[in-house]
Amino acid sequence: VKGPDGPGLPGEVLVVGTGLIGTSVGMALTSEGSTVRLSDASPGSAALAADLGAGRVRRDGDPDPRLVVVAVPPDAVAGVVAAQLVAFPGAVVTDVASVKSAPLAALRAVDGMTGSALARYVGGHPMAGRESSGPAGGRTDLFVGRPWVLAPHAGSSDDAVRAVRDLALEVGAVPVTRDPEAHDAAVALVSHVPQVVSSLLAARLLDAHDSSVELAGQGLRDMTRIAASDPGMWSEIVVANRDAVVPLLEAYRDDLAALIDDLASGAGRAAVARTVETGRLGVGRVPGKHGGAAALYAVVGVLVPDEPGLLARLLTDIGDAGINLEDLRLEHSLDQPVGSAHVSVRVGERERLEAVLLAQGWRLTAADD
Amino acid sequence: VKGPDGPGLPGEVLVVGTGLIGTSVGMALTSEGSTVRLSDASPGSAALAADLGAGRVRRDGDPDPRLVVVAVPPDAVAGVVAAQLVAFPGAVVTDVASVKSAPLAALRAVDGMTGSALARYVGGHPMAGRESSGPAGGRTDLFVGRPWVLAPHAGSSDDAVRAVRDLALEVGAVPVTRDPEAHDAAVALVSHVPQVVSSLLAARLLDAHDSSVELAGQGLRDMTRIAASDPGMWSEIVVANRDAVVPLLEAYRDDLAALIDDLASGAGRAAVARTVETGRLGVGRVPGKHGGAAALYAVVGVLVPDEPGLLARLLTDIGDAGINLEDLRLEHSLDQPVGSAHVSVRVGERERLEAVLLAQGWRLTAADD
Repeated sequence: VKGPDGPGLPGEVLVVGTGLIGTSVGMALTSEGSTVRLSDASPGSAALAADLGAGRVRRDGDPDPRLVVVAVPPDAVAGVVAAQLVAFPGAVVTDVASVKSAPLAALRAVDGMTGSALARYVGGHPMAGRESSGPAGGRTDLFVGRPWVLAPHAGSSDDAVRAVRDLALEVGAVPVTRDPEAHDAAVALVSHVPQVVSSLLAARLLDAHDSSVELAGQGLRDMTRIAASDPGMWSEIVVANRDAVVPLLEAYRDDLAALIDDLASGAGRAAVARTVETGRLGVGRVPGKHGGAAALYAVVGVLVPDEPGLLARLLTDIGDAGINLEDLRLEHSLDQPVGSAHVSVRVGERERLEAVLLAQGWRLTAADD
Repeated sequence: VKGPDGPGLPGEVLVVGTGLIGTSVGMALTSEGSTVRLSDASPGSAALAADLGAGRVRRDGDPDPRLVVVAVPPDAVAGVVAAQLVAFPGAVVTDVASVKSAPLAALRAVDGMTGSALARYVGGHPMAGRESSGPAGGRTDLFVGRPWVLAPHAGSSDDAVRAVRDLALEVGAVPVTRDPEAHDAAVALVSHVPQVVSSLLAARLLDAHDSSVELAGQGLRDMTRIAASDPGMWSEIVVANRDAVVPLLEAYRDDLAALIDDLASGAGRAAVARTVETGRLGVGRVPGKHGGAAALYAVVGVLVPDEPGLLARLLTDIGDAGINLEDLRLEHSLDQPVGSAHVSVRVGERERLEAVLLAQGWRLTAADD
């Protein structure tokens, strides 16, 4: 739909590792006018990425790249980054692993690694594409609007940081800077621990009676959605970030154990109330729409029979009234051909929204929050 | 919008306790043509419910009710049910508490309770209206399409069960029968334990750095949504169902503790992979749309700039192509005026949906699952 809006990044970009992320980087850069070369331990994978529009497979005699994007699994990052720093003494090298401290420590420990070589390395983490998948899953738009964390170390040069920021911007991502430790602490909190918590909760369903699981509602569905993730990818991520993950899991376990003790001893009421209240305060810190502070929206439930086009009509009715939709969730009913749409609007718009919907013949229902 | 489609329930229905649930029961029954009388320990609350259309406040000399709906907090249920069974020897009595075994045991232990009185009691649990709130939160449509669990005990009469089933149907709910223990095990698994797990996770955010919380994505938002619930209500529910909740929490804690040990000892990779894999299998048991088995839908991501009416246009384009939308999620971007809509369709419709959207000028993006 839209063509390149500039000449792309200067020089050649080499993408090493053509899985989902590497291929998507290549596709996005190519579509914006950059010259991309590809390499992968598997020549077939690199060729497939090239066929998908991610660039051309690198050949002997190609000019040295100005920027190398290492998109290999976390435990391979340090070795591959070191090799690229040596092979291309003029290049900036970055990676895309979802953990930053362990690869940096391993890189520093590589035999013969010098400060001037390290200065050309800046770690990165595009927070997109959680599914593990090969080049066929690559998408030009994978990074659009997503955070791309730049994690420079103390010795990273300004030029190198600038080059990686330009890369993030070029593919439509939002660059965000964190030092490697802060990055790892952040993803442990907002991603790795929630993954473990969700998987453990979903694991409890495995041996449950059908008659129990059948009563599941939206709450359980939300709590277990990310439990459908890939075991191989997650075991590598969690292990690579264990230094940040384990203390959080331990604190979680201690809170849980204390709550169980209180429940078993009969002092549970105050303990549960305190836990839920602390959680309420905690969830208030999760950023809402557009990264802003969590705003208090009013949620209005609307019954939507399961017929094609009805949801579109609902949103059209809302839009025609000039009311801005802040969020929308669909909730499905047990055994009934009707669902409800939970429409979030600014608190001050609630009454007008309800009046407009009732006037158009919609039936309102309760919304959970 | 729609009027009563029948004469309503036979005789008079007495609603005891005019909080959110009691008021909503009264409103729904009244709107369907039943005669509803109201009482509450707070006369002001009963009067407000009456003003909201939930029925008329019960007066001395009113005929005895045929059905009494006790909508008081869990720990008050047994006493109020017993009093109603005595006061109205011809009435069926039910309640709406989200825990069933403890109130039944307390009721059986009430001085002078007889088998013939108990035969007229059938426990109930409408699975709707999770927010704690007074009569002002009442809604005619609160129960439409939601499960309403009937939890008869061994001595409940068939007539009593039938009367409570008719009540559920009359307010638009879907009656589901479970014995009290099975009900409590089910809600511990699908509701109470997820609530505790979510609250404990959200509690970890309270003291976290802004720079960590700012990187939260949809996964964490899903995992902490129900953590915004009411502490007072939940402490009562969890304590009343502690016999079912504690063993599940203990099993969860043991799994977590084993995982932490493995991570700390260096044997973490296999342990995490096993945990995530077990979770994947568990989440596969969560019912999908309309209570059916979890189906595999294809999810297509579509960029939707934050302008009024664009989401409606997207859904209209999908509907015009004759493609049925199975689910829809909105994902918001960090600091960018663009979000993406994750559109779920049957797997076989994926290619056609993508072609239709691209032809209409939409930009596709990655969807997480």
